[in-house]
Amino acid sequence: MKALEEKILKEGSVSGNDILKVDRFLNHQIDVAFLNEIGIEFKERFKDVKVDKIFTIEASGIAIASIVAQYFNNVPVVFAKKVESKNLDKDVYETQVYSFTKAKNYSVKTSKKYLNEGENILILDDFLANGRAALGLMDIVNQAQANIAGIGIVIEKGFQEGGQVLRDRGVKLESLVVVESISNGKVTFR
Amino acid sequence: MKALEEKILKEGSVSGNDILKVDRFLNHQIDVAFLNEIGIEFKERFKDVKVDKIFTIEASGIAIASIVAQYFNNVPVVFAKKVESKNLDKDVYETQVYSFTKAKNYSVKTSKKYLNEGENILILDDFLANGRAALGLMDIVNQAQANIAGIGIVIEKGFQEGGQVLRDRGVKLESLVVVESISNGKVTFR
Repeated sequence: MKALEEKILKEGSVSGNDILKVDRFLNHQIDVAFLNEIGIEFKERFKDVKVDKIFTIEASGIAIASIVAQYFNNVPVVFAKKVESKNLDKDVYETQVYSFTKAKNYSVKTSKKYLNEGENILILDDFLANGRAALGLMDIVNQAQANIAGIGIVIEKGFQEGGQVLRDRGVKLESLVVVESISNGKVTFR
Repeated sequence: MKALEEKILKEGSVSGNDILKVDRFLNHQIDVAFLNEIGIEFKERFKDVKVDKIFTIEASGIAIASIVAQYFNNVPVVFAKKVESKNLDKDVYETQVYSFTKAKNYSVKTSKKYLNEGENILILDDFLANGRAALGLMDIVNQAQANIAGIGIVIEKGFQEGGQVLRDRGVKLESLVVVESISNGKVTFR
C-alpha cells in the first residue's frame, strides 16, 4: 500500500535496527481518516472472503479493527484482552503469548460468548514481527471451532519470522506493507 | 439517549448492585454501527464546542473515540496508556489513577508530542463511576496546558460520585445515559 509506505516515511521514526514507531498515526495518536483508507485496502484484499467477525487484540488493534469493520458491513469486532480483570467472564478462551517488547509472557483471554463455532473470523493487528500475538489469536479462534478467514496486518516486519510462520500454516495473510529492513535510521520496504 | 437505554436493557447484564456489563456491544465485542449512532449523538451534544482532538484511555475508550472522531471532522484521537511499555516515549505526561475494578493504582501516560498547549480537547470514555479515570485524563490535559472542551461519557453511574465531582469543577459533562440504580438485576435510568 503505497500511501502507507509514504505515511511511514513521513511520520514514522526508527530506533536501532528493529524498532519502527508509528505512534503519530497508528498506536498512540490515531489518524482516523487514514484508518479509513486502510479499511478500503483491507476490504479490497479480502473481498472474496466471507467475514462474520473481526478479531483483534488490545490496545492498538482496536482502532484499526473498529474503523475497518465499517468496510465489512459493520460486522462485530471482538478484541482479546491481555490483562486480568474482575469484570471479564470466567467462561473464556485463554492462551499465552510471549511479548518481546515487554520481555514477558502474558495471558490473552476472550469470552466464549463472542466467538462461535463455524463463524468466519478475520484477524487484524497493527504489527507482525515474530508472530506470537497472531498465533495466540489463531489459537483462540481454533478453540472456538471458528474458521480463520484470514489475517490482515498493517505493518509486517519482513526481517522477523512471523510472516513465514503464518504463511507456512496456509493462512491467507495480507500485510499492507512489508518492511524489508531498518538500518541507520532508514526504512526499506519489500 | 433512548436507543442506548434500550440497548443496555436488551444486551447488558447486571451483577450485584453496582456492576453493569455491556461487553456485548461496547467493551469486549463492539457494535460498530451502534457506535456510529453514539458518534452522531456526541456531535449533537458538543456541536457548539470547538474540538481539535479527542482524548481517551485504553482499552475500551479507543473504539468509541475512533468512531466518534469521524463526526468531528476526523480530528486526531489520542489514547492514554495504562501500562509501562519500552516503546513509549520517555517524554510523557503522567498521572496516577486508582482503579476500583482492579483495586490498585496504575500509571497513565501520554506522549508530550500529542497534546499541545492551547488545543481544545474532548475527553471521551465508556463509563463514569467514581471519576478517577476522567480526573486523570483532565490532569494530563492540564499538564499539557491544553483546554478541556468537554467530557463525553457513554454510561454514567449516577449512584456513584464521579458525575458530581466533574460537574462541580465546571466542566461541560455530557453522559449519553445516566443509570440511577441497579438492583435485583434491574437497571433504572435517571
